Amino acid sequence: MKIETVSPLAPARFPDLPAIAGLEAAIGRAGFYKHDRPDLLLLRCAAGAKAAGVFTSNAVGSAPTDWCKQVLSANRGNARGLLVNAGCANSFTGPDGDAACKRALTEAGAAIGIEAREMLAASTGVIGVVLDDSKIAAALPQMQLAAVDWPQAAAAIMTTDTFPKGAGATCEIDGVEVNIAGIAKGSGMIAPDMATMLAFVFTDAPLSAPILKTLLRQETEVSFNSITVDGDRSTNDCVLLFATGQARVPPIADAKDERLLGFRAALNRVLADLAIQIVRDGEGATKLVAVNVEGAASDASAKAIARTICESPLVKTAIAGEDANWGRIVMAIGRADQPIQRDMVSVRFGELYAARDGMVAPNYDEAAMSAYMKNAELEITVNVGPGSGRARMYTCDLTKRYIEINGDYRS
Amino acid sequence: MKIETVSPLAPARFPDLPAIAGLEAAIGRAGFYKHDRPDLLLLRCAAGAKAAGVFTSNAVGSAPTDWCKQVLSANRGNARGLLVNAGCANSFTGPDGDAACKRALTEAGAAIGIEAREMLAASTGVIGVVLDDSKIAAALPQMQLAAVDWPQAAAAIMTTDTFPKGAGATCEIDGVEVNIAGIAKGSGMIAPDMATMLAFVFTDAPLSAPILKTLLRQETEVSFNSITVDGDRSTNDCVLLFATGQARVPPIADAKDERLLGFRAALNRVLADLAIQIVRDGEGATKLVAVNVEGAASDASAKAIARTICESPLVKTAIAGEDANWGRIVMAIGRADQPIQRDMVSVRFGELYAARDGMVAPNYDEAAMSAYMKNAELEITVNVGPGSGRARMYTCDLTKRYIEINGDYRS
Repeated sequence: MKIETVSPLAPARFPDLPAIAGLEAAIGRAGFYKHDRPDLLLLRCAAGAKAAGVFTSNAVGSAPTDWCKQVLSANRGNARGLLVNAGCANSFTGPDGDAACKRALTEAGAAIGIEAREMLAASTGVIGVVLDDSKIAAALPQMQLAAVDWPQAAAAIMTTDTFPKGAGATCEIDGVEVNIAGIAKGSGMIAPDMATMLAFVFTDAPLSAPILKTLLRQETEVSFNSITVDGDRSTNDCVLLFATGQARVPPIADAKDERLLGFRAALNRVLADLAIQIVRDGEGATKLVAVNVEGAASDASAKAIARTICESPLVKTAIAGEDANWGRIVMAIGRADQPIQRDMVSVRFGELYAARDGMVAPNYDEAAMSAYMKNAELEITVNVGPGSGRARMYTCDLTKRYIEINGDYRS
Repeated sequence: MKIETVSPLAPARFPDLPAIAGLEAAIGRAGFYKHDRPDLLLLRCAAGAKAAGVFTSNAVGSAPTDWCKQVLSANRGNARGLLVNAGCANSFTGPDGDAACKRALTEAGAAIGIEAREMLAASTGVIGVVLDDSKIAAALPQMQLAAVDWPQAAAAIMTTDTFPKGAGATCEIDGVEVNIAGIAKGSGMIAPDMATMLAFVFTDAPLSAPILKTLLRQETEVSFNSITVDGDRSTNDCVLLFATGQARVPPIADAKDERLLGFRAALNRVLADLAIQIVRDGEGATKLVAVNVEGAASDASAKAIARTICESPLVKTAIAGEDANWGRIVMAIGRADQPIQRDMVSVRFGELYAARDGMVAPNYDEAAMSAYMKNAELEITVNVGPGSGRARMYTCDLTKRYIEINGDYRS
C-alpha cells in the first residue's frame, strides 16, 4: 500500500465526539498488513444494548456481512459486541471464510465476556483471502477495553483512507440529553483489491432494535446511500447502529414517536457528516460536488438522475478539469432512463444558470462559470420537469490520481 | 481540438469495401471547425431505396435524431438521402435547432434532387449550439456526387476519432450476390462536449423498410448495443441502414425468410466490426476487452452483468494497470443486481481460471495471469450460475489519457 498524502478536501481536524455511556473499546495489532499498524478494533456495549445494521446490496456479500445479517435477525437486535479488522475482507471465501469469521468472534467475544451470538463483525481489505483468525487470537491478549479514544478507533479501521473519519451529536429525547458518536472508513478501495465503506454509530439512547432499524434505514437512504465515489459497491459495506441504553429516557415504543424528532435529526447529521467525509476522501478527489435534482416525477426518479450525473465519467472528468461542461450534464440527465421534460431542463452551477428551458441560458457567462468551477466545493442543481420529486447526492471528481491509485500500483 | 496520435489498437489499414450499386456521395467543407477539414458528407441512394434506423435511448435526443425518427415513421422508410456534419451536434437546441435541421436538409436535398421528407440527418459535435445551416448552404455548390470513396467518407464524419472506420461484406440472397458497406465514427466525445457514435450502412439488396428495421434492430443489439467505452450514452447516437435495391434478388416478404440467413450473418459481421473499431478507438484505450457472461438467468440478465463489469471503473483501471484483479470482477458481478449463485461463480482470463466455485481457483497462477494481462486484446469469461443466459460485450481500459482528453483540455 502506498503512503498517501492527506486528501485536499479533508476536514481541518478530527471532531470532538461525545462520550457514549456504556461503551468501551480496545485497539489491537493482528498484523494483516506488512507494516506495523493498528488493524483491529473491538467494541463492547453494556448488557442490554441493541443494534441494527444496513448492509451492502452486492449479491456476492462477505462472511462478516452474512454473519451480521444472520445474528441481527436470529437474535432480534440483541448484539453488543463488534470486532472490526482492516487488511482482509474475508469475502468470496466460501464456507472456510464463514468458519473463520465465527472462530474469530467466538475468541474475541470470550475475551470481553460476550457470547458469539451477540457479536457482530466487519472486515475490509483483500478479497478472496480467508480471514486468518489465529492472528486475531494472538492479538487479543494485548487488547484492553477502556473508554473509547475516537481518533484512534477511527484510525484502526482505515485502509486507503487518508484521514480518520468521525462525527457526533448531542440532542434530547423527551427532555433527556442523549449522545450519538460515529466513525467511518472508506475512500474507494484498498490496494490491491476492494472498495469498502464501513460506519459504526453509537448512542446512549435506550431504543429498541426495531426502532433502531427503522431510523437507520431511513437516515442511511439520505446519507450513505446518497454518496458515490465511483459507482462500485463493495461486497463488505455496512453501517451498524448500537444503542447502549444508558441515557435515562422514558420508554419509546414507536419509531414515529414525535419525541424522536430531535434524535432523528441528530442521527441524520452524524450519518450525513460521515458520508460526506468519505466523499472528501474519494480516491484522487480534488472537488466535493453536491448534485441537486428538482422537478422529477418522484424522489426515487430524482435520485436515479442524480446518481447518473454523479457517476458519469464525462461529468466527473469535466469537473476535474474545472470545466462547466453543462452539455455532459444534460447528456447524463437524458441517459438516466427517467421521465423528463426536455424543454423544461435547466442546469445551474451555484447560482449561475448554464441552461434554461431546454437550451443554453440566455445570459450564459463563460467567465463567471469558469471562475466558479475553481472552487473546491461545488453545487450543481438541475431541474428536469414540472414534478415535485427531488434528491441531493454527493460525489467527487475523477482525476488521473484515481487511475494511478487503482491501475498503476504494480508499476 | 487536440491532435491525437492514432490509437494503438487501430487496424493496420482501412479495409476494401464493396461498391454499392445505386449509391453516390459528396464530401464538403462547411467550416464547423477552426482548422480546415472535410466536415460534411452527403449521400444519395437511387430512387426506390429504403432505410431504417436505430437511435439513442437518451431522453434528451437531438434535432437530427428527432427528425430521422419522424421521417422514417411518417414516410414508412422511404428515405434515400443523408446529410452528415461533424462539429455541431445540434442537440438541446429547442425549436431553433429543429428549424435549422429542416432548412439544411431542404437545401441539401434540393442540390441532389431529393425532397426533404426523404432526407435523413446526423450531426455530432458541440451540444447546445444551433446548427448554422448557412454554412452548409454555402458549401453545397462545391460538392459533387460521385462513386463513394469510403476512406474519405469515413474521415469526413470523424470528430475525436483517431482513425476512419469502415467494414464491408459480400453475401448471397437466394443465390444472388449482394453487398454491404458501412462506416462509423465514435471514440468517446468531441472536445469540448459530446460523445457520439454514428454508423451508416448500405446494401444493394432490395429489402423492404420493415425487413431492414427488423434486421437492424436485432443485429444492433449484439453489435453496437454490446459495446461500451464509458457508459455515457450520447444524445445523437444513430445507426442507419439504407438499401438501394439494385441487386437482382427475387422479392422477400419477411425478415424471417431463410434466404436472409446469409445476409443477416454478413450484416452482423459488418456491424460488429464497426462496433469493435469504435472500442479500439476508445479515448485513451490501450486494451480491447471482450467480456463473456455465462450461466445467467437469461440473456438479458447476462448482458446486464457484462455491462456492469465493462463499465466498472475499478475493473477498467485494473486492466489499464495490467492487473488480473479478479476480486473487482466478482464485485461487479455482485453489484449488477441480477440473480446469481455465488458458490458457482468462476472468473477466467483467457484460459486461466482466477476464481472457481465461489472462491479463488485452486491452481491460481499469478505469474501466468500477469503475463496474460500484457496482451493488447483480452478475453474475460465469467460464469454466474446454472442458467443458460449468455452475453458478450466489448470495452476498453480506463487510462490517465482518458482523463486528460476529457478533463485537461483547458490546461
